[in-house]
Amino acid sequence: MSVPTREDLDQCAAALAAVHEAAPRVHCITNFVVQTFTANALLALGAVPSMTINPEEVADFVAGADALLINLGTVDAERLKAIPLAFSAARDAGVPVVLDPVFVDRSPARARFARELAARKPDIIRANAAEWSALGGAEPDADSGSVVQVVTGETDRIIGAGQRIDHAGGHALMARVTGIGCVQSAIMAALAARSGSAFHAALAGLVLFGLCGERAARNAGGPGTFEPALLDALYASRPADLIDFKEKQ
Amino acid sequence: MSVPTREDLDQCAAALAAVHEAAPRVHCITNFVVQTFTANALLALGAVPSMTINPEEVADFVAGADALLINLGTVDAERLKAIPLAFSAARDAGVPVVLDPVFVDRSPARARFARELAARKPDIIRANAAEWSALGGAEPDADSGSVVQVVTGETDRIIGAGQRIDHAGGHALMARVTGIGCVQSAIMAALAARSGSAFHAALAGLVLFGLCGERAARNAGGPGTFEPALLDALYASRPADLIDFKEKQ
Amino acid sequence: MSVPTREDLDQCAAALAAVHEAAPRVHCITNFVVQTFTANALLALGAVPSMTINPEEVADFVAGADALLINLGTVDAERLKAIPLAFSAARDAGVPVVLDPVFVDRSPARARFARELAARKPDIIRANAAEWSALGGAEPDADSGSVVQVVTGETDRIIGAGQRIDHAGGHALMARVTGIGCVQSAIMAALAARSGSAFHAALAGLVLFGLCGERAARNAGGPGTFEPALLDALYASRPADLIDFKEKQ
Repeated sequence: MSVPTREDLDQCAAALAAVHEAAPRVHCITNFVVQTFTANALLALGAVPSMTINPEEVADFVAGADALLINLGTVDAERLKAIPLAFSAARDAGVPVVLDPVFVDRSPARARFARELAARKPDIIRANAAEWSALGGAEPDADSGSVVQVVTGETDRIIGAGQRIDHAGGHALMARVTGIGCVQSAIMAALAARSGSAFHAALAGLVLFGLCGERAARNAGGPGTFEPALLDALYASRPADLIDFKEKQ
Repeated sequence: MSVPTREDLDQCAAALAAVHEAAPRVHCITNFVVQTFTANALLALGAVPSMTINPEEVADFVAGADALLINLGTVDAERLKAIPLAFSAARDAGVPVVLDPVFVDRSPARARFARELAARKPDIIRANAAEWSALGGAEPDADSGSVVQVVTGETDRIIGAGQRIDHAGGHALMARVTGIGCVQSAIMAALAARSGSAFHAALAGLVLFGLCGERAARNAGGPGTFEPALLDALYASRPADLIDFKEKQ
Repeated sequence: MSVPTREDLDQCAAALAAVHEAAPRVHCITNFVVQTFTANALLALGAVPSMTINPEEVADFVAGADALLINLGTVDAERLKAIPLAFSAARDAGVPVVLDPVFVDRSPARARFARELAARKPDIIRANAAEWSALGGAEPDADSGSVVQVVTGETDRIIGAGQRIDHAGGHALMARVTGIGCVQSAIMAALAARSGSAFHAALAGLVLFGLCGERAARNAGGPGTFEPALLDALYASRPADLIDFKEKQ
């Protein structure tokens, strides 16, 4: 198991500092259930969310954004039209793209659409094992070009750019709040907005979210009070937290 | 007024224990306003929600689910297509169906659609008096086949399978939080997933939600802090709570 | 800078008292991200929200409502059809209309649609400077007919009916919670429902929301716990608060 080095964590801290300085705009095409939580998490972190899925205006929004999140938790007719347009606008504007192929293992129609998107090499794909398999992959590959894969589970793994890092963090209550994974993807998008390294943006998102989850659990009486406590923890997080936690372990 | 017997409450406790053991999948076609709260309530209880309304994939999701919730709080073109498909998929898979005909008394178009659904005999219908009347019924009837009707108000009444039980519970703050009734219907769906008795699943949902509401109110400063406290209470609820409360009264 | 007089604040207090007495129905065509927060804020205040965007039933809902909120935070095909129908139904029923032209400065298509709505003279338009400019206006004008413009920023300004009032209030955490502005517009709609003066309904919304924001911040550890605390503060607010705050300054 390969853990992050101090140099890796310095890059993670720099990605968070860049969010605080630049307040990047993150355009999110995400599912109905998690839109509010996602917007609040981005605001708490210091980023600026926008959420339209209207095919007529989505390209304008993405062109003015600093990162694009595509989450497949709801795939309706309007999103099916909007997502490819948003992806193209992001590529034209040089904006990083994060793909979260939620539940692609539960529906063949959704899996087909997700495979087309994966073939366009988003900067970060966040998938669990079942979703990754439905995308057509076996084991994620560290040399799959610009794509960084994050396979989440008890221990999370980030693979790409010739590197592979394992990291364990977070809290069991995170499995009892809807949209936790979707929010993690959105945070990775914010961190990727001004970072030269999609790999370290993904790693920063993983480490930061784990730390905030642990802190929130200390202030929570259950999953209901955990969610606001998590937003408070994101708001209070500082770049140094991403470096200090290792010494405290 | 007929109150639940110890035998009734034992069956209610068994329905909750089954949720904790089996973590049933509950597919929810529900309104935009309450999707997040509904998903969080199901997760807090120990069930696994899914929420797609896409007509192309909804049957796949329902076929893999253990219960189906149909809530009419928003009725748009996509839901009008998805709901009948989902109902048929649930019947094919032997999955219980809960119908919540929200606001059918406010729109004739919505009432027509709801009457077609009611004619297909969902396992549980949760309606207030105005909604029940818009569905075409006068007094709910204990022998209306497989359908269990729950008419909520100051005192709630569950009718069906030859039985009729009245129950009072909950807290006044519940009227100040959106989606409380919708969430109660979702919880009934989770409880019906592995229960042989739709009647006792509905009763369990009613008693459990009342208990959790009372507990949450003790930890809340108003309707804003009540909602997270209610989720915490659902998370903390144990089968024995459904039996013990009677002795404490 | 012109501040509210005691007579202005008496009218504001009367508008809040009318909400508590009449529990007005507020129909909201608003964006996906803020629907739940908006519904909860209206319930906390004592109003009754409805949210359908279905073009086939929206006119029925508006005809039975006491105020209409049109928020352009998401503009999709269904809303593009529903909004003009809802506006006409509101005019037919003599129901006040509040327009919140969210992000019209970010998309030309959205700006065109918003200008058509503004030309129909909603009772209240709540816009920031960039949005106001995208609506085609330069400086808001105190004599622009029945329209009251509220331009929000560090100091908020309400203009219309020959009057102009400036007011500063609220808390910095309000910029870190999604939908805060949208909720403020919804509250103005509730306050306008039974008030003869759109100007004082807008002013009451501005003052009340600022007071509640300050109160909520005292009970919050960050933006996550701020939101439930804000709902609790709306629930606890009394007409006299709108008068007393001036003496405490």
